[in-house]
Amino acid sequence: MSTLWRSRYSLRARGVKSSAIRDLLKVGATPGMISFAGGLPAPEVFPVQRLAEACETVLSEHSAVALQYGATEGCEVLREMIARHMARYGIRATVDNVLITTGSQQALDLIAKLFINSGDRVLVEAPTYLGALQAFGGYGAQYLSVPVDGDGLRTELLEHTLRLRPKFMYVLPNFQNPAGVTLSESRREQLILLADKYGIPIIEDDPYGQLRYEGKHLAPLVVLDQRNMRHDHDFSFGNVIYLSTFSKTLAPGLRLGWIVAPTEVIGKLTQLKQGTDLHTSTFTQLVAYEVARRGFLDQHVKQIRKVYRERRDVMLQALAEFFSPEVTWTHPSGGLFLWISLPRGMDSQTLFRSALAERVAFVPGDSFYASHDEESYRHLRLNFSYCAPPLIREGIRRLAIAVKNQLVQADVQLV
Amino acid sequence: MSTLWRSRYSLRARGVKSSAIRDLLKVGATPGMISFAGGLPAPEVFPVQRLAEACETVLSEHSAVALQYGATEGCEVLREMIARHMARYGIRATVDNVLITTGSQQALDLIAKLFINSGDRVLVEAPTYLGALQAFGGYGAQYLSVPVDGDGLRTELLEHTLRLRPKFMYVLPNFQNPAGVTLSESRREQLILLADKYGIPIIEDDPYGQLRYEGKHLAPLVVLDQRNMRHDHDFSFGNVIYLSTFSKTLAPGLRLGWIVAPTEVIGKLTQLKQGTDLHTSTFTQLVAYEVARRGFLDQHVKQIRKVYRERRDVMLQALAEFFSPEVTWTHPSGGLFLWISLPRGMDSQTLFRSALAERVAFVPGDSFYASHDEESYRHLRLNFSYCAPPLIREGIRRLAIAVKNQLVQADVQLV
Repeated sequence: MSTLWRSRYSLRARGVKSSAIRDLLKVGATPGMISFAGGLPAPEVFPVQRLAEACETVLSEHSAVALQYGATEGCEVLREMIARHMARYGIRATVDNVLITTGSQQALDLIAKLFINSGDRVLVEAPTYLGALQAFGGYGAQYLSVPVDGDGLRTELLEHTLRLRPKFMYVLPNFQNPAGVTLSESRREQLILLADKYGIPIIEDDPYGQLRYEGKHLAPLVVLDQRNMRHDHDFSFGNVIYLSTFSKTLAPGLRLGWIVAPTEVIGKLTQLKQGTDLHTSTFTQLVAYEVARRGFLDQHVKQIRKVYRERRDVMLQALAEFFSPEVTWTHPSGGLFLWISLPRGMDSQTLFRSALAERVAFVPGDSFYASHDEESYRHLRLNFSYCAPPLIREGIRRLAIAVKNQLVQADVQLV
Repeated sequence: MSTLWRSRYSLRARGVKSSAIRDLLKVGATPGMISFAGGLPAPEVFPVQRLAEACETVLSEHSAVALQYGATEGCEVLREMIARHMARYGIRATVDNVLITTGSQQALDLIAKLFINSGDRVLVEAPTYLGALQAFGGYGAQYLSVPVDGDGLRTELLEHTLRLRPKFMYVLPNFQNPAGVTLSESRREQLILLADKYGIPIIEDDPYGQLRYEGKHLAPLVVLDQRNMRHDHDFSFGNVIYLSTFSKTLAPGLRLGWIVAPTEVIGKLTQLKQGTDLHTSTFTQLVAYEVARRGFLDQHVKQIRKVYRERRDVMLQALAEFFSPEVTWTHPSGGLFLWISLPRGMDSQTLFRSALAERVAFVPGDSFYASHDEESYRHLRLNFSYCAPPLIREGIRRLAIAVKNQLVQADVQLV
């Protein structure tokens, strides 16, 4: 009977594959396994008590609104709070420039729905966020990949690709998922100039921007672009749409993200969101507002930074202590991830299987590439936010054993 | 600057329009206005206290799960509960046949994403749920409309249209939005036979099934189809996918719906949902589970039925008392809506403007038609669940004045 349905699948649906990562999360749940695979916040930093108080307040004072259907754009109090928050980072936005989304993943889906016709080109970083490849791919995007290095997207390689007229560029400037790298100040400037020169807009995805553990805050692309604008009318943001989320600063289980864009774009995205899920939960929106207000979230984020910085340091220290010198890794100044590069001749999928035998999990790097070559199989993504420090150290020790075993075999094969 | 973005909109996005209803909800919010426009549950029936207790339990006992990323399919405890709930209505489903969605609107979006290529035909009722037209339209559906009468979809007119090979039929058998009509038992049987004969699957949307105020429960299409199946393997449901929601029995602000489908279809929908919003809020899922367990929701639904039945009766009584005999209306045995038909020569858009002058709002019926003729402008949708009984009576009195004024003008024009 199922064939009745299968024969009716859309072309789009036939091409979609499950995320390797979400399947890996199931592996990570095996008892005794130390998993660096998920992109999970540490449950220890969820502000549970404050959330409980917020639920109580929302239900005792605002239940008729919190439990009812709401505006597709999102709750006004939350959108205003986000606009004020954005302003602190120099982003000129009013409430009309903000759309609340069901997590940042929905922002990517709505943007794909708004801009991508099947066959359109989208410029992405290599590697890039897997969920974006899924979202854009669902609408038939073709990818143009430009590599990143320790300073983020290699803007010096960009011009050639921009001549191929991508619909937009998708960029993660801060502590990028998966590589953990940050786009340097000079490259940010260069990127904005190139976007303007070629008239190619930018989707700036910034889920981790607040989780910086060292160094100074760098201006978001949207701010640099606003500075660069010759005219300022109706808060149009020139070339950049900005995305962020409460998933890393509050809790991902609430599914709350936002888009900052010109009012006209927000209007169109709102129309598309109507048909997609009517609106994001009014209850979780008002709970998030109650939690965040009066500066609580700012204080809370400081606490998260402290916990994650320690975990990053423990992981970096363990890598230095246990790993063979042939292996290299990035030194993220924020975020949740670091990125390991294996020597030529090794591949991350083979390593993944022997790592599982040592009871440690990670995500093989090829998932994060829109197109694959030998290079894309030489990397692993490690998450350092989820496990407690002793587990991080033990997991890296185990991973080092798996790497050593593979190195020996690779040497044998090369002989 | 905005033109930079506008020139890049996808073909799909250019065609999408805002829902007239959601725009009307803003009108309904004017002080002194009595609005029958929204499809809103009564806030008085939200189980606020039980929800507050559930939030407390979830946060004190399950915060690490409730606030974290979760499985795309949804929380297992909630899916199991839904499978058991479905079984009580005779629907054979296991946990693997259930996908949790971000409201029932997302179910429609995912189904469109799974099945509709641009230009595909979809068979819908005339009138039908506006949100479905928006969801399917977002993927380029073309519509084939078949009219409903007091016994629901006119199945005797179906065969001709099925020969045009729609991808699927979209049917609301119980207390249909907008017309409030219910598909009769004999037509249900006939519909299942025709679906089988022509190999055209059915999407059965049942948001109101539990809100029956009189008469006996009628078997869902999915149950009739399962009975009709020659083989029963892997709980494949033959020709019918079934949708429902917590929005009308618990609270729409939580944004929780579900899809019951063959495991293979659920697998594919889950892949698509990954790219769309990763998963529905784990927090609201666990809260809903806590509220619903130990039979609470069953008890609560009895209370809702009592409140809404009274409101329906008040509205029917006021219509009989105040309205001119030229105007007719449906007598819904459940749900939230009734449907008014104006005499020829009157149109609902003109009436809408004069009704606003009398400070009463409704939704002009043309919004609910995939294609328009004179007939589609002769109807209004009235919601009877939201306003308290005295307001319902007063609102109908005001609406009757607006109707009378229009009738006089229509007569004048006809002379």
